[in-house]
Amino acid sequence: MSNVIEKWDYFELALKADTSDNPFLDMTLEADFSYQHRTITVAGFYDGDQTYRVRFMPDMEGTWRYVTRSNLAALDGQQGEITCVAPSGNNHGPVRVIDQYHFAYADGTPYHPVGTTCYVWNHQGDDLEAQTMATLKDAPFNKMRMCVFPKRYTFNKNEPPCYPFEGDVKREWDNSLLDDYKSQAPPDFWNFKRFNPEYFRKLERHILDLRQLGIEADLIIFHPYDFGAWGFDRMPAEVNDRYLQYLTARVSAFRNVWWSFANEYDLMIDLDLNDWDHYFKMVQANDPYDHLRSIHNCREFYDHSKPWVTHGSIQSSELLEMPDWLRQYQKPMVVDECGYEGDISRAWGSLSAEALVEYFWLGFACGGYVGHGETYWNQEEVLWWSKGGTLHGDSPARIAFLRQMIEAVPAPGLSPFDSGKEIHSVIPEGVYKGMACGHHGDDYYLIYFARHQPRFRLFDLPEGGSYHIDIIDTWNMTIERIADAVSGHVEIELPSKKYLAVRVERNP
Amino acid sequence: MSNVIEKWDYFELALKADTSDNPFLDMTLEADFSYQHRTITVAGFYDGDQTYRVRFMPDMEGTWRYVTRSNLAALDGQQGEITCVAPSGNNHGPVRVIDQYHFAYADGTPYHPVGTTCYVWNHQGDDLEAQTMATLKDAPFNKMRMCVFPKRYTFNKNEPPCYPFEGDVKREWDNSLLDDYKSQAPPDFWNFKRFNPEYFRKLERHILDLRQLGIEADLIIFHPYDFGAWGFDRMPAEVNDRYLQYLTARVSAFRNVWWSFANEYDLMIDLDLNDWDHYFKMVQANDPYDHLRSIHNCREFYDHSKPWVTHGSIQSSELLEMPDWLRQYQKPMVVDECGYEGDISRAWGSLSAEALVEYFWLGFACGGYVGHGETYWNQEEVLWWSKGGTLHGDSPARIAFLRQMIEAVPAPGLSPFDSGKEIHSVIPEGVYKGMACGHHGDDYYLIYFARHQPRFRLFDLPEGGSYHIDIIDTWNMTIERIADAVSGHVEIELPSKKYLAVRVERNP
Repeated sequence: MSNVIEKWDYFELALKADTSDNPFLDMTLEADFSYQHRTITVAGFYDGDQTYRVRFMPDMEGTWRYVTRSNLAALDGQQGEITCVAPSGNNHGPVRVIDQYHFAYADGTPYHPVGTTCYVWNHQGDDLEAQTMATLKDAPFNKMRMCVFPKRYTFNKNEPPCYPFEGDVKREWDNSLLDDYKSQAPPDFWNFKRFNPEYFRKLERHILDLRQLGIEADLIIFHPYDFGAWGFDRMPAEVNDRYLQYLTARVSAFRNVWWSFANEYDLMIDLDLNDWDHYFKMVQANDPYDHLRSIHNCREFYDHSKPWVTHGSIQSSELLEMPDWLRQYQKPMVVDECGYEGDISRAWGSLSAEALVEYFWLGFACGGYVGHGETYWNQEEVLWWSKGGTLHGDSPARIAFLRQMIEAVPAPGLSPFDSGKEIHSVIPEGVYKGMACGHHGDDYYLIYFARHQPRFRLFDLPEGGSYHIDIIDTWNMTIERIADAVSGHVEIELPSKKYLAVRVERNP
Repeated sequence: MSNVIEKWDYFELALKADTSDNPFLDMTLEADFSYQHRTITVAGFYDGDQTYRVRFMPDMEGTWRYVTRSNLAALDGQQGEITCVAPSGNNHGPVRVIDQYHFAYADGTPYHPVGTTCYVWNHQGDDLEAQTMATLKDAPFNKMRMCVFPKRYTFNKNEPPCYPFEGDVKREWDNSLLDDYKSQAPPDFWNFKRFNPEYFRKLERHILDLRQLGIEADLIIFHPYDFGAWGFDRMPAEVNDRYLQYLTARVSAFRNVWWSFANEYDLMIDLDLNDWDHYFKMVQANDPYDHLRSIHNCREFYDHSKPWVTHGSIQSSELLEMPDWLRQYQKPMVVDECGYEGDISRAWGSLSAEALVEYFWLGFACGGYVGHGETYWNQEEVLWWSKGGTLHGDSPARIAFLRQMIEAVPAPGLSPFDSGKEIHSVIPEGVYKGMACGHHGDDYYLIYFARHQPRFRLFDLPEGGSYHIDIIDTWNMTIERIADAVSGHVEIELPSKKYLAVRVERNP
C-alpha cells in the first residue's frame, strides 16, 4: 500500500512473522502514529498466513511517523512515515455529532442519515451482494444497518459463505430449535481461540464497497437471531471481548464505520446492562477515531443518555415521540426501525409504503431521522431487509424526494418546537398527535400534515421578514410555490388531501 | 299525563301552587315512589308559572304508589298510583355497564356505543335542529355528546335562542376576550337565583327527540368554551351545585341520559379535582337511576378508576393504548374524541376519513369504543361537530358498516389479548403498533391491519373447533368468506391492501 494517502483514508502496514504460538491470543501489536506533537496509538491484528497488519486513518494532512511495538521481535520497532494529502471525491471524513442533535462529516459537510437495513446482505455470496451494491448505487440511502454475524430467522435459513471462527458447523438447523435452543448448551463446534481472517476480510470489503458509494456502515456487533445455529449470541464473555478487540483493530480505520452494539439488545437475555456498558466502554477505548456508537432496542430503550452513546438508535413506530426523545436524551435520534414496507405476515414487515413514508416525514419534521427497510415476499426468499437484492416498494422514490428536502434545510437541521406557546405563535397547534412540525430558528419552518387535510392554515411569521412558502405533496413528490415574499399573519389555502407538508423559508 | 306508562318511560306529576318566595331557592319537593317493599325518592322541581313537577322512571312492571313531601302545603302529601306496563318498540331501558368492560340496556340487550358529537346542536333554532334530527335518523350513531350550556368558540359565535338563567346578555362578544377574559370579572348579568325553565324544557325536548331515535344523550354538564360570553364556566360554587340539583331533578327520569361532567375538564382552570369529585358524588346521590357517569379530558386523564366513574371518556388519538387503559381502569373505555373528519385548520378537525375510520377500528378491535365528529368547513359555518346539520364525510358509511360488525360480536363484546403468549398462540404478533386485535374467548377473533398489508397470515386456532374466516375490507365495506370449517394451524392468503380486517368465528 502506498505511503501517500488521503486524509480519512487508511494506511495499512503489513508485517510478516513466524510464530508457533496462537497469534490471536499471544501476539501483541500496536503502533504509535505521530503528527507533530500528537500521537495516536492503534492496535494491530493477525490476518492469517503469518501476516500482521496495522491500519491507521489520519485526520491531518502532512507527514505522520509511525513506530510499532510487539512481543514478537519481528514486529517490534518497525518505523516509517506516511504522507497524508487532501481528501477528494466523496471523502468528507467520518460522521460526527454536531450541534447536539445532528450529524456532519468531519470536513463540516452536513450529513443527514437516511438509512436502510439489509441485515446480512454481506453473507449472501458474490452474485447477490453485487446486485445489492448495484441497487444501492441508485437508491436514496446513505447508511446501511448490517450485521457482523450471520443471521438465522424466517427467510434466513442459508449458511454464510464462511464463519468468523475456525471450526465446522455440526448442527443441522431445525425449526424446533426456535423453541428450546436456550435450554440446550450453546454449539461447541467453534475454536473460539482462532478467528477466521477470511470472514473479516469479506466484511472489510463490504464496508469499503459501501464507502465507495458514500454509505455509512452501521455495523451491528451482536444480535439475537441465532437460535442455536451457531451460538454467536451466546459466546463466553472473554470471547466477546476478544471479538470486539479484533473487530475494532481491523475496521476502525475505515471512516464510514458506525458501531451498533446490538440489534434488539433486550432480546439477548444472556447479556445484561452491565455487559452492554462494558462493550460500549471497551470499544470507546479501543477505537482511536471515536466512531459513532449506538444500540438498538426491541421493547425497552437502552438509556441513550449514557455518556458513551453518541446518538439514539430506536425501534419504534411512535414517531411523534421524537420531540420527547430529543429532550430526554439530548442527542441525535435515529429511528432505525419503525417497521418495513412489505407484505409478510409480521406486523413489523407489512407496512404500506404510505405508512412508512408518513413515519419518515413525522420523524424528520420533528428534528429526528428515520430508517428504511423492505420485506416484500418472493419465492426466492430474498427480502431486502435481510439479504439485499433489489427494491420493489413505493417508498424509496419518496424517501429520495424527502432526502432532497432534508438536505435543503439550513445546517445543522431541524428542531422540534419547545413549547406550546412557541408553536402557537408561529404554527398554530402544529404538534398534535398525527401531525408534526419543526423549525430552524426563524429561517425555516416545516409542518407535515400526514393524514390531516386542512383546507387552510394560519401562520404568524415574524414581522418584517420575507418568506416564501411551498406546499409539498410528499406522496406525489411535487412542490408548489404559493407565496413569494410574505411575513406576519399569513393564511394559506391548501388542497384538501393527505400527506401534504408546508415549507416556509426565509428569503436570502 | 297518563298514569299508565311503560317501564323505563317516565311518569310526570304536575302540581300547581302559589308562592311569593323564590321557588327555585325556597321550595322543597320530593316524592316517594313505592313498589311493594321498595321505595325510591325523587326530587321535584319548579317549572315556572306556579307549576311544580316530579318525574319518575319505573323499573318494574306493576303498580307503583307515590306520596309527595314539600314545605309548601299545596304540594305536600299528594298521593296516587301509576301502572307500569311492559316496554315496547326501542325501549330497552337505560344503558348500564356489564361484564366490566361493556354496556347493555337494562333489559339485557347489548349496547355498543357508536357515538357522535354535535356539542350545541340543541341551541341552533328549530330549523337546523330539525335538520340534525333528520340526519341522525339515517346515521349510524346511537349516542350524542351534547352540551347543556351554549358554546362560544371558532365557528360558534351565535347566541342560543334562550338562556339557562334569568337575565340579559349585556356583553358584546369580541375576539380579544379569548386572550384576557380570565383576567376580567365573570359576567354579572344573570340572576343566578332564578333558572329559566324554558331553557330546560328545550333541553328535555331534545333529549326525548334523541330517545325517539334510540340515541343516548351524553349530556356535557360543564365545558370551558365560554370565554367570557356568558360566564357559565365560572359560576359561583353554590350556583354550580344548584344547577346540578335542578338538572338532575329535571332529566334523570329520561332513560337515555348519560352524565358527562365536563368536556376537557382540565381546561376549566377555576375548578379543581376536588370540585369534580364533588359533582360526581352529588349527581350520584341525586340521580335515583344511576345513569352512566364520565368526564372528558384535554391533556390529563381524570382518574377513571374512581368509584363514581362508570366508564372512561377519553380524548386521545392513541387508540392502541386501549388495552392499557382497559387494564388500568378496569372499566369500559369510550374514546369520545380522537379527532374529527374534516378540513378545518386545527389538527383535531382535519382528519381524513381514512384516519378516523382507522381509529374506530383500532379502538374497537382492542375491546373499546370510539366516537365520531365532523368538521368540514362551509360558508354558513354550520359544522356538524358543533351545530349539527348534515353530514358530508366519508366516514359515517364506514362507521355504519363497523357498527354491524360490532353488533355481531358475541355479547358482551371483545377483549384485548392479555399477554404476549396468548397473542402468539392464536394470532401471532397480533398487537403491534399500528395494528390491533381482540377476541371473545375462543369463539371470536378479530384482527385489524390498518395500514399493514400482509399477503398471508398464520392462525393457530384451538384444535378440534370449527371456525369460519372472513376478510373484511373496512374501507370498501366488503366481507369475503375465505374458510368455512377450519381449526388448528391455518394459513390464509390476504390481498395486499390497506385497511383490512380478519374475522374468525366459531361455527355454531
